[in-house]
Amino acid sequence: MNQHRLYTPGPTPVPDRVLKKMSEQILYHRGQEFREIFARVNENLKYLFRTGQPVLTLACSGTGGMEATFVNLFLPGDKIISVNGGKFGERWVAMPRTLGLNVAEIKLKWGEAPSKEQIVSALKENPEVKAVYLTHCETSTGTATDVKRLAKVIRENSDALICVDGISAVGGIEFHFDEWGVDACVTASQKGLMTPPGLAFIALSSRAIERLQSSALPRYYFDLTKALTAFMKNDSPWTPAISLVTALDEALIMIREEGIENVWERHSRLAGAVRSGIKDLGLKILSDHPSDTVTAVLLPSGIEWARFSDILTNKYRCVVGKGQGEYIGKLFRIGHIGYYHDAGIKTLMSCLEKTLIECGIRL
Amino acid sequence: MNQHRLYTPGPTPVPDRVLKKMSEQILYHRGQEFREIFARVNENLKYLFRTGQPVLTLACSGTGGMEATFVNLFLPGDKIISVNGGKFGERWVAMPRTLGLNVAEIKLKWGEAPSKEQIVSALKENPEVKAVYLTHCETSTGTATDVKRLAKVIRENSDALICVDGISAVGGIEFHFDEWGVDACVTASQKGLMTPPGLAFIALSSRAIERLQSSALPRYYFDLTKALTAFMKNDSPWTPAISLVTALDEALIMIREEGIENVWERHSRLAGAVRSGIKDLGLKILSDHPSDTVTAVLLPSGIEWARFSDILTNKYRCVVGKGQGEYIGKLFRIGHIGYYHDAGIKTLMSCLEKTLIECGIRL
Repeated sequence: MNQHRLYTPGPTPVPDRVLKKMSEQILYHRGQEFREIFARVNENLKYLFRTGQPVLTLACSGTGGMEATFVNLFLPGDKIISVNGGKFGERWVAMPRTLGLNVAEIKLKWGEAPSKEQIVSALKENPEVKAVYLTHCETSTGTATDVKRLAKVIRENSDALICVDGISAVGGIEFHFDEWGVDACVTASQKGLMTPPGLAFIALSSRAIERLQSSALPRYYFDLTKALTAFMKNDSPWTPAISLVTALDEALIMIREEGIENVWERHSRLAGAVRSGIKDLGLKILSDHPSDTVTAVLLPSGIEWARFSDILTNKYRCVVGKGQGEYIGKLFRIGHIGYYHDAGIKTLMSCLEKTLIECGIRL
Repeated sequence: MNQHRLYTPGPTPVPDRVLKKMSEQILYHRGQEFREIFARVNENLKYLFRTGQPVLTLACSGTGGMEATFVNLFLPGDKIISVNGGKFGERWVAMPRTLGLNVAEIKLKWGEAPSKEQIVSALKENPEVKAVYLTHCETSTGTATDVKRLAKVIRENSDALICVDGISAVGGIEFHFDEWGVDACVTASQKGLMTPPGLAFIALSSRAIERLQSSALPRYYFDLTKALTAFMKNDSPWTPAISLVTALDEALIMIREEGIENVWERHSRLAGAVRSGIKDLGLKILSDHPSDTVTAVLLPSGIEWARFSDILTNKYRCVVGKGQGEYIGKLFRIGHIGYYHDAGIKTLMSCLEKTLIECGIRL
């Protein structure tokens, strides 16, 4: 009764049907039963990403999935463009540099989304780039990038691969891997996929798969050629995170039952409700291109994060995310990606209102 | 009723108490409740490894944990000695080569354990080596290495770090990280730890921690300096595999309740029962230094793996591991690491006997 309700932008609540799968006795990953489950998961991941291409499953967090793209698609010293509009964008600049790539950074103010002009200009300045990295939803700021539009612009101006951090987006915001011409897209289990953390997923276009052959950065655990070879037999090169895969199977079945278009529509509707609720409370959201999966809300002046969080968490049993980077203590983040419905959002809004009043704000 | 019983050398059966934890609603990894669990896990991992040193938890398989040691302790081109006595030893030669290290290989026949003389001779031939890698239990052959004795020999002859693949050993075979002078030891959740796969653990000595500062191979997800900094606050640099950590917490509590010495004793007793049962069936085991965690049994001539496995799996509902590498189709492997007791071993022996008779063998 007293359990916390999570409104964090990952992990997100896990449906009972999925939790039930987590508690089943472990299967042998080389046995027939698990292979059948993995085959279905592989098919349903294609449905989720809107692709006919392989979607590989790795045992790691989303950060590990992103690393797999950097170390498998390039040669040492290759240049890439990476958009940095927050904590995760920062990571997708720092990580490839550490791993031996040359990174041209498009640095944005937190809360801004990259524009068509910024992308075109970066491509002109760096005609040799081998890829452009976009963050579909920058979780630290609740900002959505218009991947469809920018992917088109990149294709028109360059042969660079289009790589997307879809960690806080896939399963929450409309996304069409094939139709939009994306080459690599990464997501993780603990967001739109309604499954506990520990799995990352990577969809790869034919162009990206070709690059696997010629790439030459050191990797072993994250070797996608090995993963792809195993994938063809519904297998994995190393021991997979079996329970998470069987749980994911159930979550993907739920997504198919609802229908991906309906899932996107639900996210859009709930995000609208959150934004209008926040406005009604007299608060401001950080982003000028708010994402339908995460809303970053500026803490009103005079409200201390510690007190606000204490009341919301311990009295009203709602957990939201805190600010990151330069916004530590200055904002809170509401996750509404994955297993959320109207009732849960109304509960949160009501608890937020009571918390703000107890913090002394006049509404 | 019809559920398979796993006797695979990973994953191993998960106790009901641990499965129950898997089905609990997800916790926020930055919240107080999870931090308290993680703090207890961190303490109990030290108990398990017999160390006062940090034991880091990563979201990956054991192979990822081993990669973390290779990329964090050395400079590019550093030479290491790696013992190759089977499929996993092969991997600990191939992986560091791929990642930029120079590897002197001690190649053994499958089923053999490395001798003191082989280690001393390799150290003499390669006085500049920065580490020696030992596999405590080579899972592909069911062979145990005398880590205590060889660690002493290495310390007496060299300043090289002593790195141990303890994946199929920790929690199953006696092991004392501090007392034996080991510098890095890796294990994974799905063996002696009775937890589903998806977590790797790395104990690091003070000498190994010093090396973290000066090492220079590219890494990001597996950056142990970041992991160690987070560990000090019972945190992790990336989203941890939360459900697996809460499940592991329960498994470690069970190990403490039984007492690690009793856990080792139980493994030793059950391994003895398996070996004597195998002998009674007229079969031979592969290894000349059998491990107390995995037994690799040669298939008698005239018995086909496919038929044997089909009857044992589908009629008698017992799953054993198949042969790997050069022993595909030529042996089967019985896992008895983790949550096994006398009754389960007796059941397996009885099912093995019936299966062999149905395969046409005369006992």
